[in-house]
Amino acid sequence: MEKIVRQSILFDFYGELLTEHQKNIYRDIVFDDMSYSEIADLEGISRQGVYDLIKRCDRILEEYEEKLKLVEKFQNTKGMVANIQTLAKELKESNSNKALADKIDAIVQTSNAILEEY
Amino acid sequence: MEKIVRQSILFDFYGELLTEHQKNIYRDIVFDDMSYSEIADLEGISRQGVYDLIKRCDRILEEYEEKLKLVEKFQNTKGMVANIQTLAKELKESNSNKALADKIDAIVQTSNAILEEY
Repeated sequence: MEKIVRQSILFDFYGELLTEHQKNIYRDIVFDDMSYSEIADLEGISRQGVYDLIKRCDRILEEYEEKLKLVEKFQNTKGMVANIQTLAKELKESNSNKALADKIDAIVQTSNAILEEY
Repeated sequence: MEKIVRQSILFDFYGELLTEHQKNIYRDIVFDDMSYSEIADLEGISRQGVYDLIKRCDRILEEYEEKLKLVEKFQNTKGMVANIQTLAKELKESNSNKALADKIDAIVQTSNAILEEY
C-alpha cells in the first residue's frame, strides 16, 4: 500500500488519539499535501522538528493498529462486501425476473453504501 | 444494550490498550462471570479494589469509543450487512432460476461470514 494511503487510513481510525498539535500537522502533510518547509514556517519550528513529529505520529498510529488490528478487520470486511457487490451485479445482469430485480438492486445499493463508508 | 454485552464488545475492540493486570481481571468479570469476592481472594486485593479496577477499565474503554467511534461504525456496517442477508434470503426463497441460485447462496454465505466475525 502506498505510504500516504496507509497514513490516511490509520489517521481515520486512530487520529483522535493524537494531540491537537500532532493532528493538525499530520493532516497538513497527509491530507493537504503541504511540504515540511511550509509547515515549519507556519508553526515556527524547524523542518527537522516537523519530520520528527510526523515520524512519531506514524509510529504511534502503527502501534495502535498493531495492538487493535481494527484497520485489518475493516479491510477484511470491506473485501467480503466487495465480493457481495460483484455477485449482486452479476445477478442483476443475468436476471430477467422483475420480482427479483428490486431486491437485487437493494443489495447493490447497500453494499455501495458500506464500501463508501471507508 | 445490556451492560455486560457493552463491556464485552468494548473489550473486544479496545481491550489490548489495557494493562495485562487490567485485562486479566476485566476478563474474569466480563467473560468468566467470576464474582468480585472470588477475584479479590485470587489476586490478594480487596473487593473494593476489584470494583474500582473494573470501573476504571469501563471508563477507559468508553473513552476510547467516545474518541474513535469504531464500535459504532462496525455496528452500522453490521446492520447493513444484516439487511443484505435478509434480502438475499428472500431472493433465495422466491427464485426458481438455477443459474442465479449459486450466486444468491454465495451472498447469503458471505454475509454470514461477516456477521459471525463480530
